[in-house]
Amino acid sequence: MKGALDRIQIVLVAPSHPGNIGASARAMLTMGVTRLTLVSPRRFPDAEAVALASGATSVLDHACVVSTLHEALVGCVLAVGFSARPREFAGRVLPVRDAAAQAIAAAAHGDVAFVFGSEMSGLSNADLERCHAVATIAANPDHASLNLAAAVQVACYEARVSATGGTVWHAPRFAPATADEIEALRAHATRTLVAMRFLNPRMPKRLLPRLARLFARAGLEKEEVNILRGILARIDEFVARAAKP
Amino acid sequence: MKGALDRIQIVLVAPSHPGNIGASARAMLTMGVTRLTLVSPRRFPDAEAVALASGATSVLDHACVVSTLHEALVGCVLAVGFSARPREFAGRVLPVRDAAAQAIAAAAHGDVAFVFGSEMSGLSNADLERCHAVATIAANPDHASLNLAAAVQVACYEARVSATGGTVWHAPRFAPATADEIEALRAHATRTLVAMRFLNPRMPKRLLPRLARLFARAGLEKEEVNILRGILARIDEFVARAAKP
Repeated sequence: MKGALDRIQIVLVAPSHPGNIGASARAMLTMGVTRLTLVSPRRFPDAEAVALASGATSVLDHACVVSTLHEALVGCVLAVGFSARPREFAGRVLPVRDAAAQAIAAAAHGDVAFVFGSEMSGLSNADLERCHAVATIAANPDHASLNLAAAVQVACYEARVSATGGTVWHAPRFAPATADEIEALRAHATRTLVAMRFLNPRMPKRLLPRLARLFARAGLEKEEVNILRGILARIDEFVARAAKP
Repeated sequence: MKGALDRIQIVLVAPSHPGNIGASARAMLTMGVTRLTLVSPRRFPDAEAVALASGATSVLDHACVVSTLHEALVGCVLAVGFSARPREFAGRVLPVRDAAAQAIAAAAHGDVAFVFGSEMSGLSNADLERCHAVATIAANPDHASLNLAAAVQVACYEARVSATGGTVWHAPRFAPATADEIEALRAHATRTLVAMRFLNPRMPKRLLPRLARLFARAGLEKEEVNILRGILARIDEFVARAAKP
């Protein structure tokens, strides 16, 4: 479903501030969404849009400018309108996560639009009626108004997670220690702790299980076992030296 | 777990642009996260921060300013460092959704920090080592750099969804039609379609099941059934009039 993100277009209806157009383009590109349609933008193209796009100028360069939402939605099999505030005749209202999942599913059949209204008033009821579903972003009811580009960021983020499973970078995995290496470490630690008279082998209490639990939780790597055994060996030297007459 | 959001603090390390501090405050407040800590901000307080906060000035007013990350993290049972780019010694790397879930769980035991680096270079390796876990936001590998406030928005959004289950507003539910009302509508529609000679009762084909499927999918409301029956009654009048000699 990787190509599904190519089927998603972000539609901004009557955006007032070119900076928000640029910031939206940046938000889109970070999530791999590149198709932007502007319905009657107040100012576009504009230097402020380029400045806020922060490198995502390709999205701005390829943006479509149209004069009505109807034109923007031609060919779309699903149009999702975003609204922060409740609407009486909204029909289906989806949390953005569910809307993104439906959008990615619908993208198998054709283009999909995420539609956002202007900064001041959002989408009009007439514009929302042109959408097949209404989506909303869970928000603090006392301060529910996300910045336009921030809302685009969350919507595109959810679309990306839905389309790609949210694959992220991983730290390189170092070779994990084997069970026998860990067992040898445990045996070594036991010897050392007994020699240090920190552990009484006749009354061991919970010390060894507690240490085992800590290291099990961490998931020891081979090299870490070597480091720990090196430390134990050095301690052994001190303990042996102290034992000499 | 509603109070869990009160246990989350957003820590911005060395932010360069006061506008990003303000936009981050706005992003936080929309998600119900209010505790902001700034580590060595270049300029703060600042009029640009207030302008971009767009009403979330209470978050700025209560922000703590400290000079080291160590101070910011005192008392935190979990500190999650955010990084867009892979780090060799990152240890656990969590997608932001999982990090948010762990943060909300940890908030039962104490304060939790989401730590973000500066706009230009992110968190240093030394700062990341002070965190218990590294989180990352799934992103386009060719353009992975979210705006600082946009990253704060996504992190706080995930925290809110984790803490509250992502409750959103719903359109008011009107009374649904009952099975007998829908059955009566179907009978009425059948009579009318036969009278219009659109439906041949001896060769009904798939027309009625198709219509039933459409309305079942929509989930008819009581008032909608009344409207549709009103339309049918009006059609009946025209059909009856046309039948008169």
